[in-house]
Amino acid sequence: MTSAPVTDLVADGDRRIAWAQRGMPVLASVRDRLAAGNVLTGLRVGVGLVLEPKTASLALALHAAGAQVSVHCPGRSTTQAVASALGAAGLQVFAEEGACAERDAELARAFLGTGPDILLDDGACLIRMAHREFPDLIASMLGAAEETTSGVRPLRAMHQDGELRLPVIAVNDARTKYLFDNLYGTGQSCVMALLDITNLQLAGRVVVVVGYGWVGQGVARHAAALGARVVVSEIDAIRALQALHDGCRVQSLTDAAADAEVVFAATGIAGAVTRAHLAAMPDGVLLCTAGGGSFELPMTYLDSLGTGTPVRQAVTEYVLPTGRTVLVIGHGDCLNCSDAEGNPIEVMDLSLSLQALAAECIATEARSWPPGVYPVTSQLETAVALARLRHEGATLELLTEELSAAMRSC
Amino acid sequence: MTSAPVTDLVADGDRRIAWAQRGMPVLASVRDRLAAGNVLTGLRVGVGLVLEPKTASLALALHAAGAQVSVHCPGRSTTQAVASALGAAGLQVFAEEGACAERDAELARAFLGTGPDILLDDGACLIRMAHREFPDLIASMLGAAEETTSGVRPLRAMHQDGELRLPVIAVNDARTKYLFDNLYGTGQSCVMALLDITNLQLAGRVVVVVGYGWVGQGVARHAAALGARVVVSEIDAIRALQALHDGCRVQSLTDAAADAEVVFAATGIAGAVTRAHLAAMPDGVLLCTAGGGSFELPMTYLDSLGTGTPVRQAVTEYVLPTGRTVLVIGHGDCLNCSDAEGNPIEVMDLSLSLQALAAECIATEARSWPPGVYPVTSQLETAVALARLRHEGATLELLTEELSAAMRSC
Amino acid sequence: MTSAPVTDLVADGDRRIAWAQRGMPVLASVRDRLAAGNVLTGLRVGVGLVLEPKTASLALALHAAGAQVSVHCPGRSTTQAVASALGAAGLQVFAEEGACAERDAELARAFLGTGPDILLDDGACLIRMAHREFPDLIASMLGAAEETTSGVRPLRAMHQDGELRLPVIAVNDARTKYLFDNLYGTGQSCVMALLDITNLQLAGRVVVVVGYGWVGQGVARHAAALGARVVVSEIDAIRALQALHDGCRVQSLTDAAADAEVVFAATGIAGAVTRAHLAAMPDGVLLCTAGGGSFELPMTYLDSLGTGTPVRQAVTEYVLPTGRTVLVIGHGDCLNCSDAEGNPIEVMDLSLSLQALAAECIATEARSWPPGVYPVTSQLETAVALARLRHEGATLELLTEELSAAMRSC
Amino acid sequence: MTSAPVTDLVADGDRRIAWAQRGMPVLASVRDRLAAGNVLTGLRVGVGLVLEPKTASLALALHAAGAQVSVHCPGRSTTQAVASALGAAGLQVFAEEGACAERDAELARAFLGTGPDILLDDGACLIRMAHREFPDLIASMLGAAEETTSGVRPLRAMHQDGELRLPVIAVNDARTKYLFDNLYGTGQSCVMALLDITNLQLAGRVVVVVGYGWVGQGVARHAAALGARVVVSEIDAIRALQALHDGCRVQSLTDAAADAEVVFAATGIAGAVTRAHLAAMPDGVLLCTAGGGSFELPMTYLDSLGTGTPVRQAVTEYVLPTGRTVLVIGHGDCLNCSDAEGNPIEVMDLSLSLQALAAECIATEARSWPPGVYPVTSQLETAVALARLRHEGATLELLTEELSAAMRSC
Repeated sequence: MTSAPVTDLVADGDRRIAWAQRGMPVLASVRDRLAAGNVLTGLRVGVGLVLEPKTASLALALHAAGAQVSVHCPGRSTTQAVASALGAAGLQVFAEEGACAERDAELARAFLGTGPDILLDDGACLIRMAHREFPDLIASMLGAAEETTSGVRPLRAMHQDGELRLPVIAVNDARTKYLFDNLYGTGQSCVMALLDITNLQLAGRVVVVVGYGWVGQGVARHAAALGARVVVSEIDAIRALQALHDGCRVQSLTDAAADAEVVFAATGIAGAVTRAHLAAMPDGVLLCTAGGGSFELPMTYLDSLGTGTPVRQAVTEYVLPTGRTVLVIGHGDCLNCSDAEGNPIEVMDLSLSLQALAAECIATEARSWPPGVYPVTSQLETAVALARLRHEGATLELLTEELSAAMRSC
Repeated sequence: MTSAPVTDLVADGDRRIAWAQRGMPVLASVRDRLAAGNVLTGLRVGVGLVLEPKTASLALALHAAGAQVSVHCPGRSTTQAVASALGAAGLQVFAEEGACAERDAELARAFLGTGPDILLDDGACLIRMAHREFPDLIASMLGAAEETTSGVRPLRAMHQDGELRLPVIAVNDARTKYLFDNLYGTGQSCVMALLDITNLQLAGRVVVVVGYGWVGQGVARHAAALGARVVVSEIDAIRALQALHDGCRVQSLTDAAADAEVVFAATGIAGAVTRAHLAAMPDGVLLCTAGGGSFELPMTYLDSLGTGTPVRQAVTEYVLPTGRTVLVIGHGDCLNCSDAEGNPIEVMDLSLSLQALAAECIATEARSWPPGVYPVTSQLETAVALARLRHEGATLELLTEELSAAMRSC
Repeated sequence: MTSAPVTDLVADGDRRIAWAQRGMPVLASVRDRLAAGNVLTGLRVGVGLVLEPKTASLALALHAAGAQVSVHCPGRSTTQAVASALGAAGLQVFAEEGACAERDAELARAFLGTGPDILLDDGACLIRMAHREFPDLIASMLGAAEETTSGVRPLRAMHQDGELRLPVIAVNDARTKYLFDNLYGTGQSCVMALLDITNLQLAGRVVVVVGYGWVGQGVARHAAALGARVVVSEIDAIRALQALHDGCRVQSLTDAAADAEVVFAATGIAGAVTRAHLAAMPDGVLLCTAGGGSFELPMTYLDSLGTGTPVRQAVTEYVLPTGRTVLVIGHGDCLNCSDAEGNPIEVMDLSLSLQALAAECIATEARSWPPGVYPVTSQLETAVALARLRHEGATLELLTEELSAAMRSC
Repeated sequence: MTSAPVTDLVADGDRRIAWAQRGMPVLASVRDRLAAGNVLTGLRVGVGLVLEPKTASLALALHAAGAQVSVHCPGRSTTQAVASALGAAGLQVFAEEGACAERDAELARAFLGTGPDILLDDGACLIRMAHREFPDLIASMLGAAEETTSGVRPLRAMHQDGELRLPVIAVNDARTKYLFDNLYGTGQSCVMALLDITNLQLAGRVVVVVGYGWVGQGVARHAAALGARVVVSEIDAIRALQALHDGCRVQSLTDAAADAEVVFAATGIAGAVTRAHLAAMPDGVLLCTAGGGSFELPMTYLDSLGTGTPVRQAVTEYVLPTGRTVLVIGHGDCLNCSDAEGNPIEVMDLSLSLQALAAECIATEARSWPPGVYPVTSQLETAVALARLRHEGATLELLTEELSAAMRSC
């Protein structure tokens, strides 16, 4: 890859981005609105998302709307062709495909060093690094937006502990984000990625889904549609009851492990699957993460065994002390990102349009808000949903005054 | 019916209630807890729910726990055998099967005249009547609980207008209520009721669901599972987008009317289906209400035509001025209640256990709360969900300290 | 019921039949064709189907087409109002609601005594009785048609043993019959009937389906759509493999019994569920038959216990020697017929139109065929399917000569 | 690819084949049985299937069982690493990745020149070439087996025309083939391939499935599960009626074209989608083939326009004379093979085990059969199904003598 001429890389990146842009009509309309409103002109916007064609489309949209855009992404999540194309388009790019952790940290610091006024983050890594290492930046920054469940959760904890010093818009918590991105997007793309990576089927298999949040529900629904018998493990009684009504068997992972043929960790919580769970699983179990990251799995333990062997592209087989084997997909990283192209373009059109609107909101209103985790306003949500419905040719029933009145009094 | 000997009616009612109680293990455990805690002893509890075996089981549970229980229900929703059985068991019953509106109003006033300390309502009718006509009762009452979406909505409006003078617990808004009762319970039972009433199938038909709240989602999901092509009409863009992703076509009712073969009103809002919508529907369309009531349909207009003819048990055919016909199920009342046995026993076990726990909460805590609409605490919700999961033999993963910590910081 | 004046019964029957006829456009078109062709004029046609509004519509269609129609049905499957309406319309009716087995046999003999030229049978009971007791009738009869899997199976065995002395058209084996009637019709209506009879839900329950033929597949599919976890018991390996791919667990009934909460027998085979299976089932299991009859269940054994108690309309509780209880629906008879209105009208429109066309085929062609079990011709099948598609507004792509040629050579 | 050292290719091929073999327990058991029985020892078996890890596993199983195995595959369906691995394992390989049509024909002739006693074909291309060009080979060959619907159809036509001169076992027609390979395998893998190739979603889209055979049903079912609204175009009325009952809209392709967003051709018939259909489709429609090949689409016409531009890996955009564009996936070849890894390993385990057993059957019995198209015996089918069920831990209910007797007489 590194030996390919840069112009080819740029052309390849451009072509990939163009394909994504075809499927992102909502983002195009938001871009036009931001450009017309001039609200981002001259502001520095830092984009810290997985670097691939869809997020690149967001970066380009912000750029087209007048912002000075810089992007950062760890090496393992960067597509070089896309990074090169952004660079060629005039954005500042701090991302190198395949960079090691140390180099990634350097790049992240350089990215924060550009002094973004607005930061769009994924997993709250950059927001937290900025709090730790760039106090002046935090003091001057207008605000940030966060994309994921596993990023919003620690930000809330920081705020409760009095440590958050910025207004952060929780894009993740928008209905137009989690209902579509998490439920349909990640659910679909993680199940598809597993099938694509392994060339196996789920029909007839026992699939254990750990965590029945939106991502877990999406995984469960798609796995069941493909003929799997789904078992759900939860710590929350109400979600567990929901899983039961959706036709899933409900068991603690401890109880379910012995029959598991495939395990999806979908909790976003570190340590959700433990070494003890692993020891109870049958030989040849497939283990992967949907939505969150490898921190959900006991990867440190597995790597410490020294028995990992690649048996297929993106599949590593580990031999446990018991002699049983575990097949881990993509070293436990969220498998639709690590070994596929991430969420479908259309759902990212919704999420990333919200990010762009969150940037607008920070530029125009949120700069004066006290530190805290803020929701996306329902007005912005509705704007995004309407843009998409219009594109699909769907029509809404009008909310007449009679109906409005009836909703209050009936 | 009226000519059957009372003892037979009581025996019949007892037998029906016993069947319901078999399927309500959660309520049984709540009853035991209330009885042990003695919190309801001597209090007057008024139960204003549809009078059938499951709600009777609630009334009996409160009675067994030491409360003085009175019940009211309009004549069209009362099962006489059940009413008689409750009377024989020592409860005060203000309900007569088949009573007219005028008699119902008398009964309601007599019911309120017993001076309930706690009122469990369905549709907020009794709470509103008490506000209008029984100011002293309102002044002395400890609080109330409301079961439905269409009851909570006007209570919120009253509170915004400064007119609510009681704390009301919105049982409807509990996840253990709406996720199960509305989505699975009403969804399932309304679709089943339509099939049972008509002996028709939905396969191959275009079914229009008006409103994509929890009830509408439940109806849509079950209709699709039975082979219908589902069209959803919404006024809310985000719900509409959800319907689109669930595989439904999204159209305003105005646009969808021409192809509708079956229409389910699932809005809980008066006037959701209008005379103009009706005029656009094809000959022989089936029209019914799921979850709400006949106020959603233009029944006044239809009745004014003078063309209604019963063509089958619970099916009335109206001829419109255009010559086209409309078949209305159960005069537009929520069809699983009007012409079937309502929600499945198991989902009512959850909802009615919450009602019992709401009564406990009012007796012990809420009496001191200022007027307002209050949520069921998540503690009560979890207790209900856990009781059910335990009954089903399901197990939960333990929330360890490590996981708890990880949820804050990951 | 018996005390109701006959004119009321007739009016009630007429109204019910009229409702069915609304949903049977295919039968109406077949009736018109038979009448125009005059092929049945003067022939005696005996109809031996479950006597309810849909089959009555068939009998009336044959009558309108010029045949002399007589009908027979056992007492437990007869709806008196419908029988009375047919009598009032000029047909010969040998069926009395609630008649005992002995009286049923008398009626069946009287029915065969009318000397039908053509016999439309359900379960092959009348065809077999005619072989045993009416040799002259068999000698003169033109032919018969059989509706069900459990009727076709013994007719094939008779033919293999050289004992069948008539041409019989196996209507059951037509794709337009079993794909719709068995899979969608019986599957849907039996699951619905169970919900309606019990007011319970299937969500969260383990449902064991015994037999994965078309009926069993239909039951499994609908139960799963309602949130059940489905276990399939089969004797055939390929069907079992199909069930596995459809997301069901596959276990012998012997293995599955211990976890069963609901058991549907869907085999059409006597003795499919044994006393030993029963002994292994948990307390309170619900037991019923879909498609076949009570012969699939160990009813003789259960009745011999003397412990049966009705606990609800159509539900009998038996206490086993172990102290555990079994709840049997409708004394084990096919539950959609015994305690609901049978298959949906639209699927019966297909099956019964095939019966009418089978009668035409016997009158015009089959009379010269040697004894045997014959398929419905694909021409008749297509005619039925086309009539229905046309009614639904569906269009077919034209089979051009190019496509025809391509199908041979591609 | 061509420049990679052969040893690396072999190692890569070996690793891929090993992964497939892990998922093929049935083939492993068949291989052991053939080896033990010695029935293929010394026979020349020609394998003409798409050359990838799963078919390679079949070739290796036959080799391990003692046969002299040669393989052929056109260049566009050959994976070079797999071909190299087979060569290194001692098989004769006539396949070169990327070979042109002319070179492919040379390779096919050389392959037939090895004089196979038994030929396992896919699409009947080699059987037909042998009939045309290798009369002596046909005269000496013991028999052949055919894998696909589109291969069996012309063989039947040849037999009707008296031109078939071999016994051919129609593996395609085995229930253990089409129910799993076509319905679940191709259905799943083609829908997944489209998502993977495009990074799009089907939710909210109108997907037109042309042809509702087993493949089309599989595509429709999976597309619907992913939230698509499915329209089915058929020429056969009964299949169309089935689609209607499965919740699909039924329209001729001519009628459906205007709303199509995605079109799957699933007919196996040349010319199923015409230039006229294309002209009616909206701008940007996605067009692909599931199960069959590019002959179903008007590719010659499209290529003749000279407007094809690659817009993404495996996606070509054509501009029509109207200015509207069509996006064709994988130049119209069956997309799960052209641009993904074909069917899931587990379903190919069934199909390819049948191929191995067909080879055994030809070696032991079929050599004496007159020319014709023969079914796989139900004994072989059951053996395959049982082996798989055993591997999955599923159990079957025993067919007792009582049940057997009941099946004849009930």
